Amino acid sequence: MEEKRPILNKNVNLIAQCHHNVLPKLVKMDSLKTNPIDFSTRLNPMGNIFQYQNNGLDLTSLIERSKKHVSQYPDNRYLELRNAAACFIGKGLTYENIIPDSGIHELIRLVLGSTLEKGDLVLLPFPSPVEYIHFSVLFGARVIHLPLHELLTVDDSILGSAKVVLFSNPSNPGGILTSRKELRLFAERCTKNKTLLIVDESCIELCDPSQTLAGHTFDNNFIVIVRSIVHAFSIPGIKAAYAVASEKMAQHLNNIRLPWSIDALADVFGTAVLSIEGGINSSYLQDSRKLVHSQRNYLINRIGKIYGFSPQPSDANYFLVDVKDLFMDSQTLTENLAMKGFCIKDCSSFFQEQKQFIRIGLRSQEENDIFLKAIGEVLTETSKEDARERLEATIETAMSGSTPASRGTCQYYPCHFKGQDCTFCFCPFYACEDERTGGKWIVASSGNKVWSCENCTYIHQPKLSRQILDILMEDGDTEDNIKKAWHLIIKPLL
Amino acid sequence: MEEKRPILNKNVNLIAQCHHNVLPKLVKMDSLKTNPIDFSTRLNPMGNIFQYQNNGLDLTSLIERSKKHVSQYPDNRYLELRNAAACFIGKGLTYENIIPDSGIHELIRLVLGSTLEKGDLVLLPFPSPVEYIHFSVLFGARVIHLPLHELLTVDDSILGSAKVVLFSNPSNPGGILTSRKELRLFAERCTKNKTLLIVDESCIELCDPSQTLAGHTFDNNFIVIVRSIVHAFSIPGIKAAYAVASEKMAQHLNNIRLPWSIDALADVFGTAVLSIEGGINSSYLQDSRKLVHSQRNYLINRIGKIYGFSPQPSDANYFLVDVKDLFMDSQTLTENLAMKGFCIKDCSSFFQEQKQFIRIGLRSQEENDIFLKAIGEVLTETSKEDARERLEATIETAMSGSTPASRGTCQYYPCHFKGQDCTFCFCPFYACEDERTGGKWIVASSGNKVWSCENCTYIHQPKLSRQILDILMEDGDTEDNIKKAWHLIIKPLL
Repeated sequence: MEEKRPILNKNVNLIAQCHHNVLPKLVKMDSLKTNPIDFSTRLNPMGNIFQYQNNGLDLTSLIERSKKHVSQYPDNRYLELRNAAACFIGKGLTYENIIPDSGIHELIRLVLGSTLEKGDLVLLPFPSPVEYIHFSVLFGARVIHLPLHELLTVDDSILGSAKVVLFSNPSNPGGILTSRKELRLFAERCTKNKTLLIVDESCIELCDPSQTLAGHTFDNNFIVIVRSIVHAFSIPGIKAAYAVASEKMAQHLNNIRLPWSIDALADVFGTAVLSIEGGINSSYLQDSRKLVHSQRNYLINRIGKIYGFSPQPSDANYFLVDVKDLFMDSQTLTENLAMKGFCIKDCSSFFQEQKQFIRIGLRSQEENDIFLKAIGEVLTETSKEDARERLEATIETAMSGSTPASRGTCQYYPCHFKGQDCTFCFCPFYACEDERTGGKWIVASSGNKVWSCENCTYIHQPKLSRQILDILMEDGDTEDNIKKAWHLIIKPLL
Repeated sequence: MEEKRPILNKNVNLIAQCHHNVLPKLVKMDSLKTNPIDFSTRLNPMGNIFQYQNNGLDLTSLIERSKKHVSQYPDNRYLELRNAAACFIGKGLTYENIIPDSGIHELIRLVLGSTLEKGDLVLLPFPSPVEYIHFSVLFGARVIHLPLHELLTVDDSILGSAKVVLFSNPSNPGGILTSRKELRLFAERCTKNKTLLIVDESCIELCDPSQTLAGHTFDNNFIVIVRSIVHAFSIPGIKAAYAVASEKMAQHLNNIRLPWSIDALADVFGTAVLSIEGGINSSYLQDSRKLVHSQRNYLINRIGKIYGFSPQPSDANYFLVDVKDLFMDSQTLTENLAMKGFCIKDCSSFFQEQKQFIRIGLRSQEENDIFLKAIGEVLTETSKEDARERLEATIETAMSGSTPASRGTCQYYPCHFKGQDCTFCFCPFYACEDERTGGKWIVASSGNKVWSCENCTYIHQPKLSRQILDILMEDGDTEDNIKKAWHLIIKPLL
């Protein structure tokens, strides 16, 4: 008899748990500040709509209205919410174009689960949210990753062989907005090739909602647009989202979504915020977009001045920072910031475990400033620790008879001067705070004072470096030994 | 080139929309009473836990606590809720055995989606909730239906060829509880055959929670138990449920569930009610079980006395009623009761569209009494309408020259007397209210007065029947014509 297949289908084993922020790990470590400020999410930096003056909404009365719904099933057609969503987007859509569900990922899973079969091909941009990959894999599909610009100009031969193309607009984690004009051309090609185009427009309200592709779903069964309610109105405690599709497609998806896809509370709240006066052009969302624009410029500018941080251009309420030039990777940086009470998004899950990028979601000017200060603190503290660790490694290498790390292997080379010795990649005397070395206190872009070694080359002079290493090798890198080396080798030169 | 497959996978087309109550249809008809009393659900008849005295919970303070969570993502491991669920069930389970999700159907979909592949076999009882079938079909599986007692004793050859067996305990819609002892033996057979057993224990807290199979999941990767929070505590506005499985199975399912499967409000509420003092044996749940027992006996007894209603035995807070002997089918009855402001569950979706059963969920004694009264009203009103409609059909048939319906085609035959004429299946003079005919006013079990024709046979006497039909055919079944027939044919006989 043939051996029975294992209970879990093999796709499940390909999926590892994905934690969306560092909270779980830190809760386990018992070292989390009680109220972390969360820069890892993509919520409206204006704060939730109930905090906005003249929003026309009353949180308390909504909560009161929700209260009676606790003991009542909602009408599972969600007509009010779907009407509100259709009006919010405009473009002549009606509730018959709307599929309500409890989140953007629930909707994407719903659509992929209704379309994919074993062996189908899904085109995704690189990088992409890990859920896009998980769902595709779960439903047995193969995935091809392409950078977004290549994806949008991919050959018909590849596009035609794909069942689904799925990406975010603005992109996630990058925050780059593709124009409606360009998307329309791509959508036409998808339709011609009978390939389903799913666009996750989660944060488009905070970016430029006029670039939505939602108006093109009417008579086209090959486009599904996914929209969030949570992000634009900053109400992540509520689970409600919706997709926009042709009536025919929407009817199919409404058939197979779970009957009560949204709970009564989220139904009340979601309907209320989507019905806000002015809709997509309400003063709340207009002010939000202005705030996003100004704070993005501000924060990108400030963070760009921190050594090792290379913020990437963005059109959205979040942006990527390349930290490959920093002396710690994205995961370590994320953990260190979390210990100070600040969550950021380590983007390794978007980049196939490459720990090079973080994503920062904008918050208020005040919080952004506190955040910058915290980055400065983490860097100062961590660079000392890091120097100590590297010193230990250097000494161990020397003691084992191997040659200590040379400049050839250093990602920071060239630095200081030509022909330098890199035994001490990080100075054991940092921060010596002795200006006679050429070092000095400077004010970093974060506003913190940082000891800069810019004009000190002692540690990289081959002869001195060898002498210092000899002393430290005698009895390890104790404080006493480091002081001894300072007094014997450096001090006489000052 | 091979024609590309349609966008939606073919399984989707097999799934039609399922409305869980008649609300949608009636809202469309604009004829729904504003606050229907809902007997279609399977919620705790005690009312929601917040209405129960000394529950130790404060709705307002929970709502207040939830309020701050509106703008905050929950910790997506849901440790507190999972801990509370494990303690609630007891049996030495820990949070590592618990998979949180937003509903029982979400959980069943999650498990089926992780196990089924195209062509797999799923064993379901007949009848089953339509979602069980939908999900199986959606994931490409074949379904075999068997009556539950046959399923539990099915041959190893069939059990071994199935990937999954899925049923509710207590059964749904029947409400029959299978004992833990019997289930354990069946579970052992499933394990031996490497077949996954999923038991949906949605209402077991209101039945006999000691019969749960949850304690047998520890070291067994072939059992998953699904538990509801909504039903036992009557809080359907909240979306929260959980599954119980071995640590290994739970870890896999936690990996592939969506990160934020439960929203912040449901997290707060779910954790609070599962942490109720006394847990499964709290006074709230003990009193609930007593109420279920007494009200089930009461309502089954009362409804059983209504002509055409055959309530089926049940162990749960709901029971089936066979209405095949009623003069309207389950769908019509459901619609008529809804117009009066009472929702019941038309079970045709459980019975492959056979419109023979309704499911009634228990409520308070007071509401149960109002409901009985409403059934009486519907029957009285509808039987008059129905008589009129059938009369029209009879006349039309006679006028077209065909033979009117004879007793051979009547599902109510035999009635009244041997050799009767069935031209008038329903009497055009109903309710004549003339006791000289042999009819009389009786008090129905609902407490309503009903005109009974028990001892009147005039309309079924072949000669009289022909004479009446002749008069009505002259000028249709107008009020005047009916009066004319009464005066000319019946009155002289009284």
